[in-house]
Amino acid sequence: MSGNTFGQLFRVTTYGESHGTALGCIIDGCPPQLELSAEDIQTELNRRKPGQSDVTTQRKEDDTVEILSGVFEGKTLGTPISLIIYNQDQQSKDYSNIKDVFRPNHADITYQAKYGHRDYRGGGRSSARETSMRVAAGAIAKKYLNGLGITTDGFVSQIGPISAKSINLEQAKNNKYFFADDQKLKELDGMFTELIEEGNSVGAKLGIRVENCPVGIGEPVFDKLDAELAKAIMSINAVKSVSIGNVKDILELKGSEIRDEITQDGFTSNNAGGILGGITNGDSIELDFLIKPTSSIKSKGQSINTAGEEVSIEVTGRHDPCVGIRAVPIAEAMVNLVIMDHLLRNQAQCGNIDQSIPFKE
Amino acid sequence: MSGNTFGQLFRVTTYGESHGTALGCIIDGCPPQLELSAEDIQTELNRRKPGQSDVTTQRKEDDTVEILSGVFEGKTLGTPISLIIYNQDQQSKDYSNIKDVFRPNHADITYQAKYGHRDYRGGGRSSARETSMRVAAGAIAKKYLNGLGITTDGFVSQIGPISAKSINLEQAKNNKYFFADDQKLKELDGMFTELIEEGNSVGAKLGIRVENCPVGIGEPVFDKLDAELAKAIMSINAVKSVSIGNVKDILELKGSEIRDEITQDGFTSNNAGGILGGITNGDSIELDFLIKPTSSIKSKGQSINTAGEEVSIEVTGRHDPCVGIRAVPIAEAMVNLVIMDHLLRNQAQCGNIDQSIPFKE
Amino acid sequence: MSGNTFGQLFRVTTYGESHGTALGCIIDGCPPQLELSAEDIQTELNRRKPGQSDVTTQRKEDDTVEILSGVFEGKTLGTPISLIIYNQDQQSKDYSNIKDVFRPNHADITYQAKYGHRDYRGGGRSSARETSMRVAAGAIAKKYLNGLGITTDGFVSQIGPISAKSINLEQAKNNKYFFADDQKLKELDGMFTELIEEGNSVGAKLGIRVENCPVGIGEPVFDKLDAELAKAIMSINAVKSVSIGNVKDILELKGSEIRDEITQDGFTSNNAGGILGGITNGDSIELDFLIKPTSSIKSKGQSINTAGEEVSIEVTGRHDPCVGIRAVPIAEAMVNLVIMDHLLRNQAQCGNIDQSIPFKE
Amino acid sequence: MSGNTFGQLFRVTTYGESHGTALGCIIDGCPPQLELSAEDIQTELNRRKPGQSDVTTQRKEDDTVEILSGVFEGKTLGTPISLIIYNQDQQSKDYSNIKDVFRPNHADITYQAKYGHRDYRGGGRSSARETSMRVAAGAIAKKYLNGLGITTDGFVSQIGPISAKSINLEQAKNNKYFFADDQKLKELDGMFTELIEEGNSVGAKLGIRVENCPVGIGEPVFDKLDAELAKAIMSINAVKSVSIGNVKDILELKGSEIRDEITQDGFTSNNAGGILGGITNGDSIELDFLIKPTSSIKSKGQSINTAGEEVSIEVTGRHDPCVGIRAVPIAEAMVNLVIMDHLLRNQAQCGNIDQSIPFKE
Repeated sequence: MSGNTFGQLFRVTTYGESHGTALGCIIDGCPPQLELSAEDIQTELNRRKPGQSDVTTQRKEDDTVEILSGVFEGKTLGTPISLIIYNQDQQSKDYSNIKDVFRPNHADITYQAKYGHRDYRGGGRSSARETSMRVAAGAIAKKYLNGLGITTDGFVSQIGPISAKSINLEQAKNNKYFFADDQKLKELDGMFTELIEEGNSVGAKLGIRVENCPVGIGEPVFDKLDAELAKAIMSINAVKSVSIGNVKDILELKGSEIRDEITQDGFTSNNAGGILGGITNGDSIELDFLIKPTSSIKSKGQSINTAGEEVSIEVTGRHDPCVGIRAVPIAEAMVNLVIMDHLLRNQAQCGNIDQSIPFKE
Repeated sequence: MSGNTFGQLFRVTTYGESHGTALGCIIDGCPPQLELSAEDIQTELNRRKPGQSDVTTQRKEDDTVEILSGVFEGKTLGTPISLIIYNQDQQSKDYSNIKDVFRPNHADITYQAKYGHRDYRGGGRSSARETSMRVAAGAIAKKYLNGLGITTDGFVSQIGPISAKSINLEQAKNNKYFFADDQKLKELDGMFTELIEEGNSVGAKLGIRVENCPVGIGEPVFDKLDAELAKAIMSINAVKSVSIGNVKDILELKGSEIRDEITQDGFTSNNAGGILGGITNGDSIELDFLIKPTSSIKSKGQSINTAGEEVSIEVTGRHDPCVGIRAVPIAEAMVNLVIMDHLLRNQAQCGNIDQSIPFKE
Repeated sequence: MSGNTFGQLFRVTTYGESHGTALGCIIDGCPPQLELSAEDIQTELNRRKPGQSDVTTQRKEDDTVEILSGVFEGKTLGTPISLIIYNQDQQSKDYSNIKDVFRPNHADITYQAKYGHRDYRGGGRSSARETSMRVAAGAIAKKYLNGLGITTDGFVSQIGPISAKSINLEQAKNNKYFFADDQKLKELDGMFTELIEEGNSVGAKLGIRVENCPVGIGEPVFDKLDAELAKAIMSINAVKSVSIGNVKDILELKGSEIRDEITQDGFTSNNAGGILGGITNGDSIELDFLIKPTSSIKSKGQSINTAGEEVSIEVTGRHDPCVGIRAVPIAEAMVNLVIMDHLLRNQAQCGNIDQSIPFKE
Repeated sequence: MSGNTFGQLFRVTTYGESHGTALGCIIDGCPPQLELSAEDIQTELNRRKPGQSDVTTQRKEDDTVEILSGVFEGKTLGTPISLIIYNQDQQSKDYSNIKDVFRPNHADITYQAKYGHRDYRGGGRSSARETSMRVAAGAIAKKYLNGLGITTDGFVSQIGPISAKSINLEQAKNNKYFFADDQKLKELDGMFTELIEEGNSVGAKLGIRVENCPVGIGEPVFDKLDAELAKAIMSINAVKSVSIGNVKDILELKGSEIRDEITQDGFTSNNAGGILGGITNGDSIELDFLIKPTSSIKSKGQSINTAGEEVSIEVTGRHDPCVGIRAVPIAEAMVNLVIMDHLLRNQAQCGNIDQSIPFKE
C-alpha cells in the first residue's frame, strides 16, 4: 500500500536506500520448477550498470546479486525468492553540504515534506539506484517469458534533438546508447562530448517492442494491459509520458484511416499497438515513452534549504548526460513484470479457455 | 484481480454490460459523515451523458442514478455505497447482424478470444457505457475533495487538426466541445458538420488541471502519483497516450533550462506538473492525454467473423465524431479517484506528520 | 480495505444495510462459461431464509435475488456478476425507541463509536441480514465446485446442552435444526418450546465437511487454507471459536497417538482435518465452530444511550432462539468461497504442475 | 497472493527456507519517525529462540537480526524496512535419509504435491523457523503500539493434561514454560522429564490478552478484528483452534446470562472478549488457542516416500516436547501485527472521527 510492491500474482516488493546497507527484493508467486541462477539475473543487471561507458555516470556500482531463498538445486521452489545487492559504494562521504538542501527537480523536497525525515545520502529511497531491483526481478520474469517464446526489446529512438530515421532493434543492442539507428552514432558522440564538457543534460525518447505475446492477456476496465504498462513505465524515475501504438498520427488521421482492419491473415496494420480493449490481440506490443533531462547537473541552480533559506546549488561529481540511456533495461524489466503478472492472472481465471483468434494458419 | 476494481482505500468496483439489466458500482472506504445525495452524482453523470448535443452520439441514455446503500439521513455511513443505473435503452433490438462479427479496432475480437463467450450487444462490458460508473464514483470523491478546496478541471485542447491557442478553463466549461479556446468554436462547428456528414471521426488531445492538492500525496517507487494517474487515464477507452507536466519541450530543452528551481516564494516554474519523485509538491497537477478517433464509423471496414470468414462491416446508426469530447468528465472522475485514494493512503501512514514545504507565507 | 470484500481471485464485495433499499454484491473473477441462473442462487438463499419454521425468527424475508450483470445466455461472461435483493420488509416502522440506545452485546455501540453515524434500523450494516449475500455469492462458488465433484456439507452437532451422539450428514439435511442426529429431535423440540416461551436463547456447535477437495489447495505461511477458513468462519456474526480437525483430543493424546501416519492406501487417520502445512492433503476437510446465544432476546437488559444515560432495554418482537441453526448455509457458503478462491490461486501459480500424492490406486 | 504477505497497510512479506542462506522480511507501511534499533527486534527474537532451556529443542539458533533499510539515524524513514537473519546452523549435513521421505503429519507431502519440488532440509519453507520473521516484524508493531500504551501479553494455560488454576500474566513472564500459574511448575517439570525420556510430545492451550486497545479498531463484515485475529493465529504452525472471549460457557449459558450489559461505568462483563461486531469496544481483547503435539518425535512412525513405497520413519536428534511453549512470543507478534494494521486502516478512513463511547469518566 505504501508503494513498494508491484504486481498482483507475480508480486515484487523492493527495499533499499541508495547509500544504505543493501538493496533487495522479494518476488512472491513465481511458478515452481523454473531453472534459475544468480547469473541469469546478473546478466541483466550488468546491462543497466552505470559507469560502463563514457556516456553514463561514472559512479562505480559493482553490483553483485545474491539469491537468498526460493531456489533449490537450480530450480525455483514456488516460495518467495529473495534477492540482495550489498552497497559497495557506501564510503562515509561527507554529506554535510547537501544534508539540509533540496536539489531542484529532485524528490528531496517532497520526501522531506511527506515523511518529515529522510536519508539525504544520494537521494535515499528516491535514487534511481532503486531501479536495480526492478531489473533483477524483471530478469526472472524474462527467463520465464523467454521460455514461452515471448521477447521484449527496448531501444532509444531520440536523444535531445537527434532522432532515429528508422528503428532497428538489432542495432540498438550493439551500441552504448541503445540507439536504434547506427547512422546517428557519430552525431551522438559529438553531442555527448559537448554535454559532458558543459555539465548539462538532455531528454530522450525510448520504445519497447514485445513479440509473440499470446492473445488474451490483460483485464477489462481498470487493469487493461495498456493501463498497467503505462503505470509501470511512468513509475520509472524521470519518465514523463507514455504512449501505446501509433500516436504520431492520432490527431492527423481520421477513424477510417487509422483503425486496424482484419483479414484472415491477421490485422492489416498495428496502430493499436497490439492491444484492443485492454487485452492483447497477438500483434506486437508497441509502447514509447519520454524521459526528461537529468536534473543532477553541474550548472548552478537556485533552491531553498530545510530552514526555508534560499541557497545556490551545484551538483558536483558524477552525472548522467542522459538518464534515458540506462532506462532501456529498466523499462524492459517493467514490461516483463507486467506481462508475467497478467499471464498468471489470465491463467487463474481463464486457464481452461482455448484462447485464440480464428485466423488462417 | 479481474480488473474491475480501482483504488486501494477508496475502492471502486464496477459492473455492467452495455445492454444488460443495469450498471452499477460499490465504493468501499468512503469516510463517514460526508453529506451526499443522488443529485451530487446525477450532476456529474449529466455532464458525461451522450445525446446532449449534435456533436456526440444520439443514443439516449436517460441515466438516473440511485443510491442503494451506505448513505443514511443524507450522510455517508462509512459502509459500502452502492450506486445503480438501470438500462432504459435495452429494447430487444435485433443483433443478429453483429452477433458473430468483430468490429475493427474494437474489443469484440479480444473479449471473444479471452473468455470464449461474450455479450455482443453494444460491446457488452467493453462498451464506453461502462465509464458512467467511473463518473458516478468520481462524483463522491469530488464532493469530498472540493470540501478540502481541491478542484479538478478538464478540457479539450485539440480536436483533429484544430488546436487551442491558449488554455482557458472557464471557456472549456461553457461550450459543447469542452474546448479551452472560444476562438476556435466556429472552426470546430464546420469540421463536425463535415464529419457527421461523412460518418467519420477524429482524435483529440485533452488536459486536466488539479488545484490546491496538498503536499505529500503519492507513494514512492511503484505507486508514484504520476504512475497511478497514468494508469487511471490510460484505462479509459480510446486513450493512447498520457503525459505529466511539460513534455512539449522535453527533447528540445536541456536540464539547466527545464528543471524547476526553488525560491522562498515557491517553484519558479512547473515543468514537473506538480509531482516530484511521485509525490505532490503543492503546485498545480498538470496532465495531458490523447484519444484516438472513434472506431465505430459509417465507412465500411474489412473484418472476419467468429467462423474466421472475411466480412465487410459498416457500423450504422448513432456514433460519436469525436469520443474525446465526452472523455472530459470521465478523466476528471478518474483523477479525483486517484487523489482521493492517495489522500487516504497518505493519512494512514503519515497522518501524524505536519506535511509542508518551508516556503515563506 | 474497509472490510467488505472477501477473496483475492474469486472476489466478492457486498453492500447493504438491513433496512436500506437493497442488499447486493459483486463477484469479480468468476471463470467464464459457467452455467448459472438466478435459481441456482435462490435455492441456497431459501435454505438460509428466516421465518421458515417455528425455530427461527418470524421475520419474513421473501428475498428474491436478481442477476444484474455478468451472465449472458445462461453462462457467465468472465465479467463481474452483480446480484441484488431488494428489501421488501422495509416499512417505515417507528424506530424512535431504539434510535439512541445501544442493545447489549450488539455492534450498535461500536459502529456508533467508529463512524460517529449509524443506521440504527435493525442493526444497519451489522445485521445478520448481511449474510444473505455471502450465501448468494457462495452459491456460485458451489456450482463451480460441484462441477468438479467437490462438496461442502454443514450441520449442527450441539444446541445448548443437547449434543449429537454421532454425526450423520444426511439426517442434518432433513430436519429444521440441521441437526446431525435424528435421535435428539424430540429433545430439541422440547427445549425450543421453552426457549420461545421464555424469550431466551442458547448457543450451538456446528461443523462443516468438505469432500473431494483436490490435493495442493492453500498457500504457505500466512494464507494457509486453515487460516483462511478460520477467518471466513469467524467473520460470521456470533461465531466465537473455530477449529480444524480433531481438537477434542489435542490436550489428551500424545504426539505418537495423534499424528496421522501414511500408508500406500492413504492416511491412517484424519486428525489433521485434511490440511497439512496449510495445504490440502486430499482427505476430508473438517472444521467445527461455536456460535454464541442470540443477544436479541426478550429478557430485559441494562444499557446506555448515545447521551451516556443508563437505560433498560428489551428487544420485542421476532427473535431467533438459536442463531446457530441458520448459520449452516452461511458457513457452507464461506467455505465454498475460500476453496474457490484458493483453487484459482493455485491454478495461477501451479497450474502446470501435476499435483498428486503417490498413493496406490 | 502466494501467501507470504501479511497485512494491508502495515504489510509484512517474509522469505526463507529453514536451511537456506537467510531468512528475512520487508515491512512496508511503517509510519515514519518511529525510534527503532536492531536491539528492539533482537529482544523479541531472543524470547522465541529455541535451545534456551531444557524444555525446548536443543537446536542452536544464534539468530542475529540486521536492519538493512528503512531506518536512518535511529528512526524509521517511512520507506520499506528490511530485516535479515543469516542461517548459522547451515552445515551441509547429510540429508539423504529424509530427502525422499514424507514425515508423518508434516507439510513434506503437501509441499511436494503442490510444487513438485521442495527443499527437504529441515522442512524448508514449512519449518517453524519461518516464524522468526513474524516475531521480528511484530517487534516493530509492538514498539509502535507500546508507544500508544497498548500492550499484548501471551501465556500458556494448559500443557497436556496440566492446567492453570488461574491466569497470572506476571507469573507467565517468569518461567520457562510461559505458564500462567506458578503452582504447577513442579508438576510440569515432572511431565517434561518423562516426555524427553520417552521422545514424545503433548499439546497446549495458550492465551493472549491485549490491554488499552482504543475503541473503533476493526472493519465490518469480512475483516472483523476477531476474524483477522483468528486467521493470524491459525496461520501459526501447529495451531488447530482459536476462540475469542468466553467460549467455555457458550453452550452452557443462555443469552440472558452471557451477554455483556452496559452501564455508565463500562461493560458489566467481558464475555465478548473486547470485540463487538468485529470492532473493539475498549475492553481487554481476549483470545485463546490450541496447539497440537509436536509431530517430530522419536517414536517410529509409518509413512511413504516419493516413489510411493512404505517406509518406517523416526525423527532423531533435537525436538520440542511441546511446541506450544515457543508459540507465546509468536502469537503475541501476530496479534500486534493485526492491531497495528487495523490501527492504520482505521486512521485512513476514520482518522477525523472522535471515536469514543460515552462512559462516565
